[in-house]
Amino acid sequence: MSTSTPAVEPARAPALPEDVTGAFDRAAAAVQPVDEAAAEAARVRHATLLKPPGSLGRLEDLGVRLAAIAGCCPPPVPEPAALAVFAGDHGVLAQGITPWPASVTATMFSAFVDGGAAVRVMAGRAGVRVVPVDVGIASALPGHVTADRHVAHRIAHGTRDLATGPAMTRAEVDRALDLGAAVAAALVDEGARALLTGEMGIGNTTPTACLLSVFLDLDPALVTGRGTGIDDDRLAKKRAVVAAAVDRVRTRLGDRPEPRAAVAEVGGLELAALAGFVVGGAAAGVPVVVDGIIATASAVVAEALAPGIADRCVAGHRSAEPGAEEALTHLGLSPVLDLGLRLGEGTGSVLALPVLQTAAAVLRDMTTLADAGLA
Amino acid sequence: MSTSTPAVEPARAPALPEDVTGAFDRAAAAVQPVDEAAAEAARVRHATLLKPPGSLGRLEDLGVRLAAIAGCCPPPVPEPAALAVFAGDHGVLAQGITPWPASVTATMFSAFVDGGAAVRVMAGRAGVRVVPVDVGIASALPGHVTADRHVAHRIAHGTRDLATGPAMTRAEVDRALDLGAAVAAALVDEGARALLTGEMGIGNTTPTACLLSVFLDLDPALVTGRGTGIDDDRLAKKRAVVAAAVDRVRTRLGDRPEPRAAVAEVGGLELAALAGFVVGGAAAGVPVVVDGIIATASAVVAEALAPGIADRCVAGHRSAEPGAEEALTHLGLSPVLDLGLRLGEGTGSVLALPVLQTAAAVLRDMTTLADAGLA
Repeated sequence: MSTSTPAVEPARAPALPEDVTGAFDRAAAAVQPVDEAAAEAARVRHATLLKPPGSLGRLEDLGVRLAAIAGCCPPPVPEPAALAVFAGDHGVLAQGITPWPASVTATMFSAFVDGGAAVRVMAGRAGVRVVPVDVGIASALPGHVTADRHVAHRIAHGTRDLATGPAMTRAEVDRALDLGAAVAAALVDEGARALLTGEMGIGNTTPTACLLSVFLDLDPALVTGRGTGIDDDRLAKKRAVVAAAVDRVRTRLGDRPEPRAAVAEVGGLELAALAGFVVGGAAAGVPVVVDGIIATASAVVAEALAPGIADRCVAGHRSAEPGAEEALTHLGLSPVLDLGLRLGEGTGSVLALPVLQTAAAVLRDMTTLADAGLA
Repeated sequence: MSTSTPAVEPARAPALPEDVTGAFDRAAAAVQPVDEAAAEAARVRHATLLKPPGSLGRLEDLGVRLAAIAGCCPPPVPEPAALAVFAGDHGVLAQGITPWPASVTATMFSAFVDGGAAVRVMAGRAGVRVVPVDVGIASALPGHVTADRHVAHRIAHGTRDLATGPAMTRAEVDRALDLGAAVAAALVDEGARALLTGEMGIGNTTPTACLLSVFLDLDPALVTGRGTGIDDDRLAKKRAVVAAAVDRVRTRLGDRPEPRAAVAEVGGLELAALAGFVVGGAAAGVPVVVDGIIATASAVVAEALAPGIADRCVAGHRSAEPGAEEALTHLGLSPVLDLGLRLGEGTGSVLALPVLQTAAAVLRDMTTLADAGLA
């Protein structure tokens, strides 16, 4: 692939343990409630800073949230940041829900490694480390996508068709959760002080819609959108697939399905890994910046598996896809940006990061009213 | 003043000509229409990049706008950026429209120079040069606020009380417009490739409300807000002052008042200088990032004086103050951020800058679908 690659840090794989088994359960057990005293200290501090009270609006709320997550006030500026882009393929492509072939996932993965993808351009601007993670791509990767430049941890060559049966086995779900949690832990070990969620997977708004419908108890039609921009025919197929799959989950697993069982039925490998990553980041005590509709659905799964992790997340943006608003409300998250993005990759989390970092810097670096003689 | 100043570039004054007379008129005459061909080229290019068409939402629109302003595609990334913070005082404080004394303007100005103000902290994060401009502060500045660290160009020690007569003479308005245009030209001469608007002036939401009501023909009550957070009593006073002043403008100058005459009646020195700065930036061909309600009102004045400059502006954010939405609509601007900010200083323009810069970088640096083999 020819690229006009900017001069940014190349993609670089973190050092993962050989065996990540149990990483998710350890992370879930380690998640602590956020520190309400630190949050209150940040509110009090904001009232002492050289500005009218509340005049920085939601930037003040973000600072308070970062204090609650860090357990101190002022909170550290969340940098450096690392973005993991989990990629996987989907057997449900057999149903004709998208015009794109699964091979595009591998092509895009190459662009995450090489630097020509949107999120790499953005990450270069924001100083974010990008770690592409192959958790379940179906196609072969080009030879230059070497193991030092991505996490090669393919659990399966894509999922099975969720329209005809479970997309994954329970063991596959567990392995994906463990991988995600282990990647989060490794990135924090290597210095990351904010974790950003990203994903790629042709067809993955279909399992996302299924998960949102199941976990939020929403009408499948309300959470099934056009994804990359599919036409009316494909949208009708997609809606039928999602409705049938959600019905199957309810029939097999009941109205309040056990989360891992539901993910196995209608989820995806990158979605499960993302859920593990969110919990891993929450356990490590760093803020987790949630990207678009797929990452938000994964955060919903993560919250079901490890209640309380949502308090350690920040919503990067409000996705243009249906269901985003409901999912954010469920998680109690107010998005930083609202730019009509619907690309994924982590673009919304990377774009929001400077605002988040500034929210912490303001709490740390501003003069007080008292110091200015205005108290 | 004691500050916990971060290690950022100190405030530094640009080299201005000794006599800036005529700078505004020269700038207004030099403003060119934006380049629709470059905009179209950016739209076409966006459709060729490695992503579903339109999937970067309003970030794509921002890239198109930057191409139109720059006259080429891809547009250059607008960096480095410089923020001018115009400061002035207001005789209308005599009417009790705010609990803050005018001396706070000088105090805040010191914090722009020293580094403890919110906007300085944000500018440090975003790599933005900050230039505080004293165009009409009423109080003396502390001795350490030396001429090399700010633009010392005080046209008057604040305006006169707009409740009892014209706030400024026509000559003062002209001098403020010239100063603003000259500061813009000097900053671009010294390397700035984006200009950001900021302001400080205790009481300046009152002349702002007057200008919005006069220039947009809006009910004064609809554009008069709480500013720094005034109580109901002061808000009632402020509304009465604005309504009476707007009535006076209409009586003296008619329903479509000549813009400079209206600004002399009910404007402010920093507001007029900001209008000049916006036109100066437009003339220099760089994008002008408009901050909150005061800067937006100044951009409305600028558009009245030099029609077309709004096409060269980007709205940093949607201010929480009333009238912001109407003013942005009038200018045809869609704000980058919507975080409930109501501080001014340039905080909203600085916070939005990384998004704007990323919009240009995406157009320049992303791989195309064809290069990725997906055309």
